[in-house]
Amino acid sequence: MISVEAALDALFALVRPLGTEEVPLREAAGRVMRADVHAFRDQPPFPGSAMDGYAVIAEEAQPHAMFRVIGESAAGRRFEGQVKPGQAVRIFTGAPVPEGATRVVLQEDVTRTGDIITLTDPLDAGPHIRPAGVDFRQGDTFTAPRLLRPADVALLAAMNQPKVTVSRQPKVALISTGDELVLPGEDPGPDQIVASNTFGLEALFRTLGARPRILPIARDTRASLESAFHLAADADLVVTIGGASVGDHDLVGQVAGDLGMEQSFYKVAMRPGKPLMAGRMGADLGGAMMIGLPGNPVSAMVCGHVFAAPVLRAFQGLPAEPAPLAHAPLLAPLPANGPRMHYMRARLSPEGLRAFDSQDSSILSILSEAGALIQRPPHAPAAEAGEILPYLPI
Amino acid sequence: MISVEAALDALFALVRPLGTEEVPLREAAGRVMRADVHAFRDQPPFPGSAMDGYAVIAEEAQPHAMFRVIGESAAGRRFEGQVKPGQAVRIFTGAPVPEGATRVVLQEDVTRTGDIITLTDPLDAGPHIRPAGVDFRQGDTFTAPRLLRPADVALLAAMNQPKVTVSRQPKVALISTGDELVLPGEDPGPDQIVASNTFGLEALFRTLGARPRILPIARDTRASLESAFHLAADADLVVTIGGASVGDHDLVGQVAGDLGMEQSFYKVAMRPGKPLMAGRMGADLGGAMMIGLPGNPVSAMVCGHVFAAPVLRAFQGLPAEPAPLAHAPLLAPLPANGPRMHYMRARLSPEGLRAFDSQDSSILSILSEAGALIQRPPHAPAAEAGEILPYLPI
Repeated sequence: MISVEAALDALFALVRPLGTEEVPLREAAGRVMRADVHAFRDQPPFPGSAMDGYAVIAEEAQPHAMFRVIGESAAGRRFEGQVKPGQAVRIFTGAPVPEGATRVVLQEDVTRTGDIITLTDPLDAGPHIRPAGVDFRQGDTFTAPRLLRPADVALLAAMNQPKVTVSRQPKVALISTGDELVLPGEDPGPDQIVASNTFGLEALFRTLGARPRILPIARDTRASLESAFHLAADADLVVTIGGASVGDHDLVGQVAGDLGMEQSFYKVAMRPGKPLMAGRMGADLGGAMMIGLPGNPVSAMVCGHVFAAPVLRAFQGLPAEPAPLAHAPLLAPLPANGPRMHYMRARLSPEGLRAFDSQDSSILSILSEAGALIQRPPHAPAAEAGEILPYLPI
Repeated sequence: MISVEAALDALFALVRPLGTEEVPLREAAGRVMRADVHAFRDQPPFPGSAMDGYAVIAEEAQPHAMFRVIGESAAGRRFEGQVKPGQAVRIFTGAPVPEGATRVVLQEDVTRTGDIITLTDPLDAGPHIRPAGVDFRQGDTFTAPRLLRPADVALLAAMNQPKVTVSRQPKVALISTGDELVLPGEDPGPDQIVASNTFGLEALFRTLGARPRILPIARDTRASLESAFHLAADADLVVTIGGASVGDHDLVGQVAGDLGMEQSFYKVAMRPGKPLMAGRMGADLGGAMMIGLPGNPVSAMVCGHVFAAPVLRAFQGLPAEPAPLAHAPLLAPLPANGPRMHYMRARLSPEGLRAFDSQDSSILSILSEAGALIQRPPHAPAAEAGEILPYLPI
């Protein structure tokens, strides 16, 4: 058996980062930016007012001082003249501060009669002016690779980028295998169950920026599996699930091998999970990377989070790293762990983590209630309530 | 000024939950399920083997015991006969346990010669049989409303649901206002900046299950704003941003009022943020809910997380509740807070939260680096490093 870390390294070694494409900014969220972006100019491009008020010379802004209002500066329509001693310009948030002015007095600190304003006592400290370039300066770099979140999209807009160079989305072919499977909506016989893994994994992979598609269920025959692999020939990643009905992955591995896949088979020291197949399809099947996941519903989803998610990030040019862990306090004690990494399904509340009593790898209803997979390393000692433990958010 | 909580309550009072529609299971992830789902049958539908091995009568499974293998039970192809004393059935993970058998002996605990197996000493404890219905039972309810995550989609598939009744997606019209704005890719004049809020909010709202669209920028004229509101007439929610160039929201509120909007204007005790407008458009403009957000880029995005996100969840039938908070330790101390709720941009690392030095509401580059908004309640005392603080993940 190999460790989770060693299995991940073996998978990363098979990843070839995808090429790039240019997309409109509106389609960039959730994608991985692959080319650095440079700001074309300062933001803000001018010293701007941070408040609604009056722009004056800072030294003159004393309690009871009076000024003549000589104009107005609004966002998009600056005051073109110069502010001289005894003068003020009405100014609004975001508007350019006129030349000569070095402070904005809040409108709440002013009484106005006609064109004359008088400052109150006391006065707010000021100066309420945002220097040009306080957000970013011309030539500043927004560095790739980067998974773009909503705030990044706003920043790219502010940098005047209508298009962004992002990674192509990994095309993933999902193949369920097994004579026992039917599709949702079909009428299962007494020995059959409904294929659930592909639907859960498809939803998961979509959140990871991939373009997954579900292929027809492959039966436990050579012809059916060959047909499925041929349908997957245009994919970047082929994910098979199960094959348990004729022994662990036996037929899937045999057929893939006959189709030119150089394959490795790992027993990974983890719960749930354990069997994992990986390799690369032959050139006439497109040379796609292939991952074979276990068929138990929970095992397949957990391996999706632990293995497939980091692989999909690496495909898109992000660093080849394990899925990021979060941390929270444990609400009820856990026993010492055995020799395998255990991903324990747990309820995540504002107070912390509580592992479910049953960790059976066939029980999807518990995975659906779980917000976290507590990561228990091999031979971890018993954990007390209150201890801070690492977990994978799911 | 009103509190964040009071402002949210005022917004929730304007939400009318949307109707429902039926979507294929493959499109259900990220949507809010609105009708309870009942399982049509037990899962698993039969007692199933949890391992690869041999099915026998439990009492007979003693070290060195011998059995005659009388057949095979694979997933999808059960063994039809009965297991009698001295007999064993080869069985694979997920396969139905044959009648009479009450335990599965692991294949690792067996030596086989022809049709005869001999058990090893010692033996694993067993029984490695999953009872029928251990995941869910016929008639069990999967309760709505529920935001569907990937594991939920897998569970719905296992429950044999090809379609799901979900909330209609809220249609959101995003209107930037201001003479100073240009669109990304345009050539801004010296007094102009690039509209960024709508792009960031559109990306955010899409992650919340909404169908946002960006309307043309409204200029600071009555005609331009009227035109924008008419373009938004089919929306469920109209979100305006800014209006600062003619004083806080003045013209936006006036024009919306003239178009029949019953409006409220709040100064919310929060940083960044503060000005917030809310109301309902007149019937001839579709009666949509309207929220007016501040124009500062960071303020608009923070208000999107604090106000618009819970509103969009409520539109989809989820409980009217504030955005859920997470908790993490503080890595560097924070001073006491003033009278307003402060959402402090912070870097989130595995070790904890570190607030940025600058909290200026115009600096998008810092929001882009922030993974969290630390929520500092009004008059919160100074916080030491190591204290656990609540935050909004962003």
